[in-house]
Amino acid sequence: MTTDSSVQVSVLGLGAMGSALAGALVKAGYATTCWNRSPGKADGLVAQGAKAADTAGDAVRASRLVIACLLDHASVHEVLDPLSDELAGRTLVNVTTTSPAQSRELADWAAQAGVAYLDGGIMAVPHMIGQPGASILYSGSADVFHQYRPLLDLWGTSTYFGEDAGLASLYDLALLAGMYVMFAGFMHGAAMVAPAGVTAGEFAAEATPWLTAMTGAFQGFAAVIDGGDYTVEGQQSLQFSSLSDLLAASSDQGISTEVVTMVQRLIQRQIDAGHGEEGFARIIESIKQPG
Amino acid sequence: MTTDSSVQVSVLGLGAMGSALAGALVKAGYATTCWNRSPGKADGLVAQGAKAADTAGDAVRASRLVIACLLDHASVHEVLDPLSDELAGRTLVNVTTTSPAQSRELADWAAQAGVAYLDGGIMAVPHMIGQPGASILYSGSADVFHQYRPLLDLWGTSTYFGEDAGLASLYDLALLAGMYVMFAGFMHGAAMVAPAGVTAGEFAAEATPWLTAMTGAFQGFAAVIDGGDYTVEGQQSLQFSSLSDLLAASSDQGISTEVVTMVQRLIQRQIDAGHGEEGFARIIESIKQPG
Repeated sequence: MTTDSSVQVSVLGLGAMGSALAGALVKAGYATTCWNRSPGKADGLVAQGAKAADTAGDAVRASRLVIACLLDHASVHEVLDPLSDELAGRTLVNVTTTSPAQSRELADWAAQAGVAYLDGGIMAVPHMIGQPGASILYSGSADVFHQYRPLLDLWGTSTYFGEDAGLASLYDLALLAGMYVMFAGFMHGAAMVAPAGVTAGEFAAEATPWLTAMTGAFQGFAAVIDGGDYTVEGQQSLQFSSLSDLLAASSDQGISTEVVTMVQRLIQRQIDAGHGEEGFARIIESIKQPG
Repeated sequence: MTTDSSVQVSVLGLGAMGSALAGALVKAGYATTCWNRSPGKADGLVAQGAKAADTAGDAVRASRLVIACLLDHASVHEVLDPLSDELAGRTLVNVTTTSPAQSRELADWAAQAGVAYLDGGIMAVPHMIGQPGASILYSGSADVFHQYRPLLDLWGTSTYFGEDAGLASLYDLALLAGMYVMFAGFMHGAAMVAPAGVTAGEFAAEATPWLTAMTGAFQGFAAVIDGGDYTVEGQQSLQFSSLSDLLAASSDQGISTEVVTMVQRLIQRQIDAGHGEEGFARIIESIKQPG
């Protein structure tokens, strides 16, 4: 990775994440200007060599590349709407957490203001920035992504999904959904074994390699889903995927069955629709078509 | 791994799994006797060197070690109840899928019949038996587990959980619960991105490493749960874990929100009970105490 120290970059928003992003840029030798609504947040960065801007406008005027890492979508408009003239001709990389629809709206706003726009979704917590494991998803302007790739790669693994500015946010939310649901599944398992005197740590020691191994099934499910034929050979059928043993054992342990019942409902709707002999991957149809 | 060819072993039940288990024993040189209720299933094994027994009684009498891999708990009683005298003094390893309560009942039955009993839960599909990745969970007689460990290890990684015969089945079901719930989370994510033209395969390429990395959080959750203090520093709070962005984006995509709503309910019940500032791991309390 080479650093082009002639690249000037401004970071708007110095919460934990914005500070981590700015810190990585300063450390790599970029001429970095920082701004935060409430003062004092830039002090640590200034000590490392960053400049602090008194106003967002000063920060925007200082650099061709502006990174926004603000509270939310409304904050982005609040800060940038008055600066659309100054932003014209510059590049905006917005890593503020926004919905896909909000990202697309900001991309439209930027296009009208003559601003090149790249949207980013950060799959990491602040202390992971610049460390292995941090992943940042991008969509929007391909030119911006490729031009600033060396800078973006300082933060983590950069993946570009396409010109639709909402895609990175959509992927981000879809991956987070998978994560939260997996966490609930882990918690259900830990709650099942707890009454038998098994600690959560003991269960985690089994669940971590097990669920890691089971992620290996995703590509097989995907092949069936993308192929559009849930009757292909070699799949576990929905009929065979009864969770009644799981539900009975959960009830026996005196715990809530709602986590597993969620999956059972997805299965049952497909069985009820006459697809019991088809593959497990078909549960995605229960999600795609709300009942 | 050494094979003691003087060990005679009988396998009751030659479905896909029973056949795979017996095949691994024959291949390793064990003197293996097979029996199945419907005839003809032993032919392939006999060609490899196994003996076929005409009756379950003949199979039991042929070996000190009897493996049961039958349809269900009722089948185990149906086949073995008439043979309790013959089984006395022998060892029964039951890998039939049973609930924890059923495993404990069978252990009691075996104890009364003078049969040493080990219960097994197979975390693998038949073609994985004897291959890396196959895992078999055991509980019940520690003596049986240790005496026959070389034989058991032929099938996959053997893990022993304790004298409570129901533990292996409980772990098995708890791990399966985690798997099915994770699968539902993957399907939700794939359903979210589908309307944007993202294939399930493209999503799986991101979700597989992401969820694998996120299993790394389990031990941290477990430490908090086992520590019994959900207020320890460094955790993401429940208040911060709002899934409303996820739910809104899912609705925007026109898909069912039920998979994520399940997690949201677990979070909300803890927030409603005044624990919003505590860590995310606290959702296990929503599962442990059914509403």
